[in-house]
Amino acid sequence: MNEKITSREEDFGAWYTDVCKAANLVEYSSVKGCTILEPYGYAIWENMQRVLDDMFKKSGHTNVSMPVFIPESLLKKEGELIEGFAPEVAWVTEGGSDKLEERLAFRPTSETLFSDYYSKKVKTYRDLPKLYNQWCNIVRWEKETRPFLRSREILWQEGHTVHSTEGEAKLEADRMLDTYREFFEKYLAIPVVTGRKTEKEKFAGAEYTLTVEALMQNGVSLQSATSHYFGQKFAKAYDIKFINKNNEYEYVYQTSWGCTTRMIGALIMSHSDDRGLVLPPKIAPYEVILIPIKMDEKVLAIIDYIKTVLEGKGIRVTFDYSDKSAGYKFAEAEVKGVPLRIEVGLRDLDQGNVTIVRRDTLEKEVVKLNDVVNATMQRLEKIQENLYNRALDNLKKRTYDAKNMDEVKKIMDEHPGFVNAYWCGDVNCELKMKEIKGTKSRCIIESRDYKEEKCVCCGKAAKHKVVWGIQY
Amino acid sequence: MNEKITSREEDFGAWYTDVCKAANLVEYSSVKGCTILEPYGYAIWENMQRVLDDMFKKSGHTNVSMPVFIPESLLKKEGELIEGFAPEVAWVTEGGSDKLEERLAFRPTSETLFSDYYSKKVKTYRDLPKLYNQWCNIVRWEKETRPFLRSREILWQEGHTVHSTEGEAKLEADRMLDTYREFFEKYLAIPVVTGRKTEKEKFAGAEYTLTVEALMQNGVSLQSATSHYFGQKFAKAYDIKFINKNNEYEYVYQTSWGCTTRMIGALIMSHSDDRGLVLPPKIAPYEVILIPIKMDEKVLAIIDYIKTVLEGKGIRVTFDYSDKSAGYKFAEAEVKGVPLRIEVGLRDLDQGNVTIVRRDTLEKEVVKLNDVVNATMQRLEKIQENLYNRALDNLKKRTYDAKNMDEVKKIMDEHPGFVNAYWCGDVNCELKMKEIKGTKSRCIIESRDYKEEKCVCCGKAAKHKVVWGIQY
Repeated sequence: MNEKITSREEDFGAWYTDVCKAANLVEYSSVKGCTILEPYGYAIWENMQRVLDDMFKKSGHTNVSMPVFIPESLLKKEGELIEGFAPEVAWVTEGGSDKLEERLAFRPTSETLFSDYYSKKVKTYRDLPKLYNQWCNIVRWEKETRPFLRSREILWQEGHTVHSTEGEAKLEADRMLDTYREFFEKYLAIPVVTGRKTEKEKFAGAEYTLTVEALMQNGVSLQSATSHYFGQKFAKAYDIKFINKNNEYEYVYQTSWGCTTRMIGALIMSHSDDRGLVLPPKIAPYEVILIPIKMDEKVLAIIDYIKTVLEGKGIRVTFDYSDKSAGYKFAEAEVKGVPLRIEVGLRDLDQGNVTIVRRDTLEKEVVKLNDVVNATMQRLEKIQENLYNRALDNLKKRTYDAKNMDEVKKIMDEHPGFVNAYWCGDVNCELKMKEIKGTKSRCIIESRDYKEEKCVCCGKAAKHKVVWGIQY
Repeated sequence: MNEKITSREEDFGAWYTDVCKAANLVEYSSVKGCTILEPYGYAIWENMQRVLDDMFKKSGHTNVSMPVFIPESLLKKEGELIEGFAPEVAWVTEGGSDKLEERLAFRPTSETLFSDYYSKKVKTYRDLPKLYNQWCNIVRWEKETRPFLRSREILWQEGHTVHSTEGEAKLEADRMLDTYREFFEKYLAIPVVTGRKTEKEKFAGAEYTLTVEALMQNGVSLQSATSHYFGQKFAKAYDIKFINKNNEYEYVYQTSWGCTTRMIGALIMSHSDDRGLVLPPKIAPYEVILIPIKMDEKVLAIIDYIKTVLEGKGIRVTFDYSDKSAGYKFAEAEVKGVPLRIEVGLRDLDQGNVTIVRRDTLEKEVVKLNDVVNATMQRLEKIQENLYNRALDNLKKRTYDAKNMDEVKKIMDEHPGFVNAYWCGDVNCELKMKEIKGTKSRCIIESRDYKEEKCVCCGKAAKHKVVWGIQY
């Protein structure tokens, strides 16, 4: 057990920050509420970016770059948006030695800038759709911050699209939700629940918000990516009109969707253990680390050889030739969550063997040197699969049905997780739920006029089936 | 000739902004001094990033992310730096509804943050070197702005390294200068002059600044990338000490180096013509565009086939199936500077031919369908080569020697360019040169105590051979 890492049982919150620090993902800075992404943490973000960016481009999206500043008057054009974001905007008021005539917001999100841009660029239906995305930083003036989960400066991606029909825009919001789901499941090995946010929890200014919700090891839920349908709200506020095929002016239909470095937090809390980070191979900075038991010429030659062959197969490989002891190197590789470790020593080599150790299960296996490439490829696949299945197990074990508040309370007190419960749609019932350890609606997974089912809070006729959870 | 584009002869400045707009690289925003990078412009930046990032990583650098804000007190620790940047810092003074106790600068550059970080992380010589880089946005509160050349918000890359010896740090500053030079010559097809900035022109806080200087078609010079050696200046101001091999405390030796989207401006002014953008294949969003003369089933099948084969060879290919006329499509491909255009028409196809058109020379050739892949690959190489040679010709034709101010004036009035002239080292002579159309020292290319050579300005004994030029 790593001395620097608190155990999850003792204090899950302390464990989380210990892992962040011990694995050198992140460092506190001298700037309050802002963190430094260190090389290892940033490398995870780069892998996430690479995969997502490819997915976005395959579905026809292109990257652009909007200004980081939003003049106050422009930000305020759409009333609901500014109401939602006003309490957490950082303002630039001085440039050089001059006081600015108008305050500039550091973008908290860029609907306003994209809308302003689209209002100039979109003339006819031939200009539609516009499928744009940007990778950038945003600022939200949070009071309390935690690495990756809540920070004043956030690195993220924000897609902003405009369409000529309502149906196409809604389809876009859906497919981007699905893109995120696929990314979480296939790459991050995190099973998720998706659905629609309630009116209270939706994005300020959206007609509706779709969300990807993940469940952490300790049963706390994390909103992990969102996709918004705006209808014509921004189009009307920012005058984004086009001439349709009937030669009439019409307002565009709009979406936006985003995800942030918070996904690194989701990764940690989904898979890691008391020894440190555990990473799915598909997103790990290195999938394999080669460690010499002894710094011997023959050992290093074999390591070099294995590295070359594995890299030829497209696997990300590193090695540790530092003058630390082999034991120290093993521990460090564990803390950093390198999915597979290959130990190369003279005694093994004499038998034509090397030892491979899986990070997820800590299983050790001796494999023949001439089988090491196949074994590596196979184990990496197994690890990816196992992490997903383990997280799915946790999700299943912690998914409950509840009929009344007492049941919800019992679950959240004893072994929290996702609670499926019916809801009448009244915001007062939603607020009542919050009294149970801050339980909030995560998403609506079905809506209709139910015959039998009753609201978990007030007992009146239900209109929605809702997943509830304790919020990060 | 494109109607929307002013000719270079008529007005080079207007031509430049016309090309930026006509090729959809950039759009003005509602935020004063900030522009929008549109998809085509951003795609060029992405290609630049991809190539440079690979080069940086191959030389052992890793990416990180520092906060975007710098508390005023932290920024002011190194006196020269803040003196240099104070007039152009944007300040955040309000967060949410609160006035901040301390102003936060939007980073104009991040030496201070990296130094603060290194002071916490570097303990012994084993921790050195640290070779970090970040891709991010910075802000400099410029009064006058021009697309890519001068802007309030700038996208850039900034490398920041610390080393255990002076020699190693100086080598780093040199090799990054060389990396930039290689990037300009091999990828951007822009020949450059490199050297050291004078005391007056160096980066605030640097011991010395190395620079990459390019010469535009009109003879105006553009500072295109810089690499700084700081010695122990920041180390002393921010207390970055390590225990060296003799078990003594020592301050680290530091460098930084950066380049920005200004390189897109350099690209435009080096290669483009009165029809629009001309791009070197290695950095163009698309190297080839396929255009059907007529939207015919047979034509489209061939286009699809050629596209697939070329993409298999790693070439970036697009096509235009819109309902515009072929002529319109040709013009658009020209404005956008796609290096090679392949026209596919029924008449050609009947003879087993297609037509290829080079953007750089506008040469048309009919090639056999079964030779189109080889021809394409070969022409792309030729275009890259030709653009470099053409720019080199311009550089050579516009590089002069001058012995006195009259000669400098004559050159700058008649046919400006790089002027090689000796200099005594006195800043007053440097300032005098500025009276000739704003001529500034670009870089020192040699320094010694010359016997014969005299200062171009005062006639006293020369100490430096300097390249001078009119500044963008």
